[in-house]
Amino acid sequence: MTLIPDSHADLLTRPLFAHLATLMPDGTPQVTPVWTIWDGELLRFTTTSDRQKGRNAAARPHVALSIMDPGQPYRYLEIRGRVERVDPDPSGEFFDVLARRYGLPYQPPVGDAERRVVIVVRPEHVTKQ
Amino acid sequence: MTLIPDSHADLLTRPLFAHLATLMPDGTPQVTPVWTIWDGELLRFTTTSDRQKGRNAAARPHVALSIMDPGQPYRYLEIRGRVERVDPDPSGEFFDVLARRYGLPYQPPVGDAERRVVIVVRPEHVTKQ
Repeated sequence: MTLIPDSHADLLTRPLFAHLATLMPDGTPQVTPVWTIWDGELLRFTTTSDRQKGRNAAARPHVALSIMDPGQPYRYLEIRGRVERVDPDPSGEFFDVLARRYGLPYQPPVGDAERRVVIVVRPEHVTKQ
Repeated sequence: MTLIPDSHADLLTRPLFAHLATLMPDGTPQVTPVWTIWDGELLRFTTTSDRQKGRNAAARPHVALSIMDPGQPYRYLEIRGRVERVDPDPSGEFFDVLARRYGLPYQPPVGDAERRVVIVVRPEHVTKQ
């Protein structure tokens, strides 16, 4: 069973940017725009193990994200959840899935493939408007 | 002196939505889209004292926000900062300033004026892309 309401599922199936909040080592929040993909159960994000977001997600599993409908900005999903695992993506395969999904020109920095990871998040609490 | 780089100041002066992360009572993050206005030194947000974001900001001062350029989604500002104070806005005057700035139809819930507050945030750390 998913927590995502059918009325707002399009905010996850459309290639919209999410704003993903993680926790810094001192417990303060950090938030940046990210690509995401949802499989009906879990949300996945790409980053690298040495970026702040990757370090935060690996060390402190509580995260939150906000996704707004660009055509109706008072329509949004707020999801709070837990990092279930951080998987390696050394071939950049998952990065490519997201890059194609978002269809925008973007190149990963040369040589970051060995540090590329997939943050896998299980939604635990959802608010919609 | 402001921390906001001139190259990205337009992301604060244009009426763009920010995604504001606060901390829940258990220290986990919460993030939602919000209106904001920047005076060159401080960022201000409207909410109510009984909403989750208002309760979080009043109790735990560490916040973060992310603002993306809708025309260039890989151009964004990430700001981490501290709630300097939460001011009452019982006349709804500040709410009206933001409603006019964003120019979109939106009515505050009837009868929430007495709980309406202004969250005042001082940026402490800025990242741009």
